[in-house]
Amino acid sequence: MEENLEKYFHQGAISSHLIGEIIARKQQNSSIGGHDIFLGQIRTDKVEENVVAAIEYTTYKEMAAEALAQLSLDIKEKFQLIDVVILHSLGTVQKGEICLFVMASAGHRKEAIDGCKECVERIKKEIPIWGKKSLQTKIFNGKLINNT
Amino acid sequence: MEENLEKYFHQGAISSHLIGEIIARKQQNSSIGGHDIFLGQIRTDKVEENVVAAIEYTTYKEMAAEALAQLSLDIKEKFQLIDVVILHSLGTVQKGEICLFVMASAGHRKEAIDGCKECVERIKKEIPIWGKKSLQTKIFNGKLINNT
Repeated sequence: MEENLEKYFHQGAISSHLIGEIIARKQQNSSIGGHDIFLGQIRTDKVEENVVAAIEYTTYKEMAAEALAQLSLDIKEKFQLIDVVILHSLGTVQKGEICLFVMASAGHRKEAIDGCKECVERIKKEIPIWGKKSLQTKIFNGKLINNT
Repeated sequence: MEENLEKYFHQGAISSHLIGEIIARKQQNSSIGGHDIFLGQIRTDKVEENVVAAIEYTTYKEMAAEALAQLSLDIKEKFQLIDVVILHSLGTVQKGEICLFVMASAGHRKEAIDGCKECVERIKKEIPIWGKKSLQTKIFNGKLINNT
């Protein structure tokens, strides 16, 4: 159970190096004709006079892992996918860093693309992972200072 | 013009390492909130009693590069994308290897996902890149032999 609890979560930002490694692993199945990958990235949104500098993600691992396992099964069956990978950051992720990785692999492109899209939408709506924004304040000389 | 001619093409398979590098470069813009990536992979399709072992891609570079440049502009404008990357293999790509990389980056996920999908569809329909399949024949002991 411990393995299942951890497989959907990554402490901190998801690096481009790790993404390359996952792609290399998932290429092994040569009945796959297309992979679709979504990467969620921390955007420097404005909040009044401030901008987002980082987001800290927390969850109830047991509850979120169970929901993500069921979601993976649902999506795999509905879109006849060969594989689905979901990885969500926990802890602090800085602006410009990646906090969500979803990969759907199928024999044909339509299933991979549509499956990935629905998976991302359902993660955003259904999975109990919360993000707390850290803000920075713009000051007169254009530099940013912390505003916790 | 030489640079524009080459920027859409990659000799041989597109490695997971190269994909990681492109993702790292495209993360630099922190107004991006989502990237969607499609990877086309050589599938071991059956052709009568044979299976596909590799595909050799050829094109008229000038014509294909011009069409891909226009397609990138169209998609970027229509979906308000921050960035679009298209990379197609030329030459031989073996089964299980990646022959097409499309990445659409936007402020929000909907634009990235929908933009990437339309870009892939239009590449498949409109871009003059041809693939010639190399086949392998199944023999009795289950091993594969070349059948050029």
